[in-house]
Parts: sequence; C-alpha cells; structure tokens
Amino acid sequence: MIITVTLNVALDVTYRVPALIPHASHRVLDAVERPGGKGLNVARVLAALGHPVTVTGFAGGPAGDEVRRRLAAEPHAALLTDALVPIDGQTRRTVGVVDAASGDTTMFNEPGPTVAPREWTTLLGVYRELLASADAVALCGSLPPGVPVGAYATLIREARAAGAHVLLDASGPALRRGLAARPDLIKPNAEELAGLTGFAEPAKAARDARRRGARAVAASLGADGMLVLAEDGGWRAAPPVKLAGNPTGAGDSAVAGLLSGAAEGLPWPARLARAVALSAATVLAPAAGEFDPAAYEELLPRVEVVPATS
Amino acid sequence: MIITVTLNVALDVTYRVPALIPHASHRVLDAVERPGGKGLNVARVLAALGHPVTVTGFAGGPAGDEVRRRLAAEPHAALLTDALVPIDGQTRRTVGVVDAASGDTTMFNEPGPTVAPREWTTLLGVYRELLASADAVALCGSLPPGVPVGAYATLIREARAAGAHVLLDASGPALRRGLAARPDLIKPNAEELAGLTGFAEPAKAARDARRRGARAVAASLGADGMLVLAEDGGWRAAPPVKLAGNPTGAGDSAVAGLLSGAAEGLPWPARLARAVALSAATVLAPAAGEFDPAAYEELLPRVEVVPATS
Repeated sequence: MIITVTLNVALDVTYRVPALIPHASHRVLDAVERPGGKGLNVARVLAALGHPVTVTGFAGGPAGDEVRRRLAAEPHAALLTDALVPIDGQTRRTVGVVDAASGDTTMFNEPGPTVAPREWTTLLGVYRELLASADAVALCGSLPPGVPVGAYATLIREARAAGAHVLLDASGPALRRGLAARPDLIKPNAEELAGLTGFAEPAKAARDARRRGARAVAASLGADGMLVLAEDGGWRAAPPVKLAGNPTGAGDSAVAGLLSGAAEGLPWPARLARAVALSAATVLAPAAGEFDPAAYEELLPRVEVVPATS
Repeated sequence: MIITVTLNVALDVTYRVPALIPHASHRVLDAVERPGGKGLNVARVLAALGHPVTVTGFAGGPAGDEVRRRLAAEPHAALLTDALVPIDGQTRRTVGVVDAASGDTTMFNEPGPTVAPREWTTLLGVYRELLASADAVALCGSLPPGVPVGAYATLIREARAAGAHVLLDASGPALRRGLAARPDLIKPNAEELAGLTGFAEPAKAARDARRRGARAVAASLGADGMLVLAEDGGWRAAPPVKLAGNPTGAGDSAVAGLLSGAAEGLPWPARLARAVALSAATVLAPAAGEFDPAAYEELLPRVEVVPATS
C-alpha cells in the first residue's frame, strides 16, 4: 500500500468563462469541483495505475466534507482509502478561472485553516498506524499554519523507521527542513531546486541537494523532462513528443510515476520513464489534472532514458 | 409579517486580493461568505429594521446548506424565518473578487440549479400558507430554469387574493410576464425600465409601465435617487449627500425601505424617503451589501421628497 500525505488539502474549483475581463461580471459556463492538494492528485493517479493508496492529511468544514464525498465517488474509489483527519478549521477552496477563448487560467487560492496541536497529534497517530502496511509514502505540498515547521522531518523519520520509501514534494522551508531527515527522494522543479541550493544549473543543484540530505533527487525540467540523481547513478529523460496542453497536475503525475515504481522495486531508469510518460500524458489530457491512459501506454515505451553526464 | 421570495438563491463569496492580474495566481487575503440573492438581501435589511420576515425560495446542495446555516446565524436571526424549500439541485455560488488596490470587483456567477416541477409545486404550497399571515411580499430576482415563465404572475395573483401588498423586483421576461398580474409595485432601475418600455426617459417609461400593469413604479436612478409614480401622484427624492462607496445591495435596501413602509401603511413620500436613505446608507457602509444604521438615521430626515412634474 502507498500513503500520500496532504496537510493542506483543497477543494479545487474550475470555472470556465467566455473571456476574463477584469472588473466585469462573468457568467460561468460550467463549474467543476474536485479534491485537490498535491497528495490527493498523486493518489488519484496511483489508483488509476492500479495501486491501493491511502490518503491522509486534514479536512474540515463544508469544503472538507465535499472533498471526502468526491473522493468516495472517484472512478477508482475501490483502491482509494480515506484516512483524512477531521479538523475544526475549514478546508480551503482554490478557484481557477479558465478563459475559454485563450485557455489561460487565473487562480484564486483561499487561505487554509489553522491546525490545532491536538489535530497534528491525531494525524501522527493515524500515520504511524498506516505505516505498518505501507511500501511507499509521498509527503506533498505546503504546511498549513499550526503544523510544526519540522513536520516533514518527523514524518520522514517515522517512514524510514518503518522501512517505507519516502518521497518529499515540497518547497521553501518545508523542503529545507525535511531534507535534514534524509528522504529517499525529493522532486523539486528547477526553480525550487535553485531556491534550495542557489545553483541555477539543475545537475549541479541536484548534486548539492543530495549533499544537503536527499538520498536521491528527481528534478522536473518542464518540457525538457526530468533528471534523476541517485546513489547509483544519474539519468535524464525527455518526453518523446512535443507537448501542447495544460501542464496542471503534470508534476503530481510524475510523483505518482516515481512512487509506484519505487513500490514495485523498479530500477531508476524505469521509474524515470514512467514519471516522464505519465507527466506527458497529463499535459495531453483534455481535462486539467487528469492523465490520458491511452497516451500513457503509447508514450511509455518511447521514452528514452540516457545516463546523465555530470 | 413580510415574505421575501428568492427563487434563485446564491451563496455570495467575496475574495479580497492585493491586485487582480489576469492569468496569474492570487493569494486570497480573506474570504467572506454570506447568503445571497436579492430576496435574502432584502430580508436581512428588513430584519435589521425590526420587521419580522420569512424567506422562501429554493436551496440545495452544500452551498444551499451553507446559506441556511448562515441565515440562522445572522445578527437579527430572531426576526428571520427560514421557509426555503429544499431541492435536489445545487444552489449556486457567486464569487466576487475585490481588488484591494482599486476597490473594483470582478464577478463570477455560477449557473443555478434546475428546479423540478414538484419542487415548484411544493414552493407554491409553502407560499400560500405563509400568505395567511403576510402584510407584504417581495418577489425578487431571476427565475431559475425549470420554473414556469409565468411564475411571478402566479405568485402576484396569490398575494393579491390574500390581501398582501406585492412588490416585484425583476427584469426581462420575468418582469414583463409578472406585470400582467398587476403587482402593487415594481422597482426597476432606469436601464430595466427602458428595456421594458422602450423609453429612455424615466418618467415617461414609468407611466408606460403603469399602463402595462404595474399599479405603482419606483424607478431607481442611481446617484439621482428614486422616482415613484403611483395612482395618487408622483414623487422624486435624491440622497442629501454626494455618495462615495460600494453600490452593491443599494437596490435591495431600497426594496426593503419601500416594503417596510408599505407594511406600516406609510404614505408614498415617506416610503420613498426611507428607500433613498437606506439605499444611501448601504453605499456608505464599509462592508458591501450591508447598511450603516447610524448613517440611515442621520440621512432619513434630510431626504427631500418633491412632487414629480411629468
């Protein structure tokens, strides 16, 4: 079983409008709501790949209820276990306004709830229980107010003590502090990696991130694919086709690819190929944040993984 | 008791952002939710004025639940009775994004639910029961899909048969079709009145609207105040001060002023003065859609009502 942890869950709302005009009134053509927050996106992709996955994190208020209701109604709900911890605070919404003419999205992100100390303690208890049967863990996204800044370091230590592979997908102080606990893998994009290390060149920055505590680094390089730097080598892979589409969720699909590969014990090049193909199949999917299974199957054997020359 | 009918209830959400930048990602500084739809706004003002008021209309889904929860938590909730009819459809949200720098608002209005025929029948039954103890009724806003286009005509006939004063605040076909049932008062703005009659000049248009079936017309003229044309005369009144502020909800406050005056049996000039003072006190209030009670008390005696020369 795989665990994904989303401390800052969201209800993602997408509004399609004919065209965004500042200070005007817009008729919303259609409104779509879905469970959001990186870890929930990763879990959805894992379930679609056939992996049993348990989601934990915090959920509260009407939007939190809606997230849980919609998780239970997902197409692959049979593989998705909801172990979210109820909180007194209100789960945030994010509203993405898609301009139907240009396809551009304007985002509005509500502030998230504050987590009480006892709620964090409850989550730790739930997490420890889940670890007993977990092969791999993804710790995803930002830390809500009220959660200790060292939260990810604590969760990483617990996972490693339980023998589970642990991936950290965070940025800023949450990433920096998490590294101290030596996660098996981090998945920053080039910008996050540069922010962490001060190096703009991804290979150099990845080496530095490993020195700072990451056992392996998978750096997502946008259209250029991904670079992996691990103990036993370095590899690069790019998508086999020029991608046009919506990159929303492509990073979360890459995490699902890396994590499912780890859970199956695949070697690094196979994990990398899976991450790149899933990520590309997400950009190509018509709905933002979904992946196109047919495109994934078609792209996977065509992803070329090459040793990274450092 | 006063009844307000809101067939197209909304949960109004206001997001404050530092500055609206199309296609960018925005951190929402604060999010405020409140019951919305014209009739609910009118009811809130009536309750604040000390009038017992019963709200009916349709509410469903998570946003409908939230509307009801918030109605029960209103400062004047003791005077507000919730007689909303539950529906299978989902009550819409409206999202207003306020640019903290300029104060300008960008609106996103979700499509509303479709009302089932049996839900409309249930509402008619609830409405008939409420009419037994009602002095005045306000029918407010647009008709949701599924409700007969002659809905307002039906509700007006029922109210008149029960001896209640009935005000119609609608536009387009809903207003046009409602007129046939001879409402006691309509409250269009200059644009709606021109759309109904084809006359741009408010006094001329108001006379024409009376010929089309309205027993009286209160035309809101923005910063110029309001014009009333009734069976026994015509009057105009303008706010006594130059108004700077947010006009959101000013029209709904005017309806509350007109309706409370009718319920109390006040003569037209006093109803008009109340509507203009309440409307001005709403523009001046710091929160959009609220009215400033102190400003209202101060402005009311200063509103000058003059006979309208036709």
